[in-house]
Amino acid sequence: MTYCVGLNLQDGLVMLADSRTNAGVDSIATFGKMHLWQQPGERVLSLCTAGNLSLSQSVVSLLNGGFVDHEGREHDLLKAGRMFEAAGIVGAAIREVARRDGEALKQQGIEPNLSMLLGGQILGRPPQLYMLYYAGNFIRATQDTPFLQIGEAKYGKPILDRVIRPDTSLLQAAKCALISMDSTLRSNISVGLPLDLLILRKDEFKPALHRRIDADDPYFNDIRVRWSEGLRSVFATVPDPDWGL
Amino acid sequence: MTYCVGLNLQDGLVMLADSRTNAGVDSIATFGKMHLWQQPGERVLSLCTAGNLSLSQSVVSLLNGGFVDHEGREHDLLKAGRMFEAAGIVGAAIREVARRDGEALKQQGIEPNLSMLLGGQILGRPPQLYMLYYAGNFIRATQDTPFLQIGEAKYGKPILDRVIRPDTSLLQAAKCALISMDSTLRSNISVGLPLDLLILRKDEFKPALHRRIDADDPYFNDIRVRWSEGLRSVFATVPDPDWGL
Repeated sequence: MTYCVGLNLQDGLVMLADSRTNAGVDSIATFGKMHLWQQPGERVLSLCTAGNLSLSQSVVSLLNGGFVDHEGREHDLLKAGRMFEAAGIVGAAIREVARRDGEALKQQGIEPNLSMLLGGQILGRPPQLYMLYYAGNFIRATQDTPFLQIGEAKYGKPILDRVIRPDTSLLQAAKCALISMDSTLRSNISVGLPLDLLILRKDEFKPALHRRIDADDPYFNDIRVRWSEGLRSVFATVPDPDWGL
Repeated sequence: MTYCVGLNLQDGLVMLADSRTNAGVDSIATFGKMHLWQQPGERVLSLCTAGNLSLSQSVVSLLNGGFVDHEGREHDLLKAGRMFEAAGIVGAAIREVARRDGEALKQQGIEPNLSMLLGGQILGRPPQLYMLYYAGNFIRATQDTPFLQIGEAKYGKPILDRVIRPDTSLLQAAKCALISMDSTLRSNISVGLPLDLLILRKDEFKPALHRRIDADDPYFNDIRVRWSEGLRSVFATVPDPDWGL
């Protein structure tokens, strides 16, 4: 499985992905799930993927360099005029791959599944964050719901629900995303290190930070310990029930 | 949906269930999901249910007063000699209901689903906690894994993973279960108040506490506020990353 979270805030975008892939418990491997396209000063796009690895790799391969769909239409992320158009291109790539492989997977008893987060900014337009589904359709993060998650999303959702607001700073958002990931790592063995973290500051059109976080990362290890100790300490300070037991 | 958690600890059992049932978002109702059978001084059994309400109510109706299965065998929770036997009786009741309704549900395009937590103690035997599946099979909580969850389990799992040990006291475990429920209530609208909380102290063979917790409950409201403030405060004290941004 996978856990990826994207946040679209006033100051820009934060995206975080794990890198564990498994086909059964005896076939576990590390595959980066975060992909980046950029034209410095003009556009920067990041795609995080969850679901069937063969499908998601095929989608990324189609997107690299552009592709022509089965009806002869050309699609190129580097030519999209706005993020809405870029999301449509990713959706078209998903549909091409689903058209090629979906039925054959079903015949093997495998339900094809795929979901993606697309975040980025194109010159002259605001940063946007989209979540795409296997059908190639997509939704967009808004002021009301500034974060989107794919994969094993539930363990790490409560802290995002409590902390994230549209005006949360990029560093605070990155910290919150890492804590959300920590909760997921602890409770679900199918999500694993290393992590890929990307920060895109608004109107910079290049990564402010693109960092691989592994088991030796001092900052991530520090917040894991502090968060764990902090939770236990809050738990201890919350009074026990006074039910006369 | 539903969220129920059961904990089997050195001092006894804690069980907590929400009470929201929905069939689509326009049909939401309150149904208690915790059921109790007791013979004071001899046995106390509690069953929490998740899944299709018609199936779970039928199972509980069969268990009330005992039942004869389709092969003519008698089953009675009040005559089970140990918890393993009681779990087998609940499993037999699930299979009877699945036999009656399962195929008809599938023909309507509804995948039958049902899961249950059975906790309790029978004189001369230790307290036990079981989780049962739609197939009528079951697993038992152990020292290594002293808690089991059914329904919307993921939001509330991280705090249980961090806090619960076999020697956690019953009151601390009840507090942790309520915090786990709070995280679930905040992140998933299909889980809702009121809650049913049951504490069974070892070798008492009657509830030490059986409490309905609604929106006016002062203790639950207090820990919800304290936990939320505590989490935000820990989040604020964890240092932001020093990445030179």
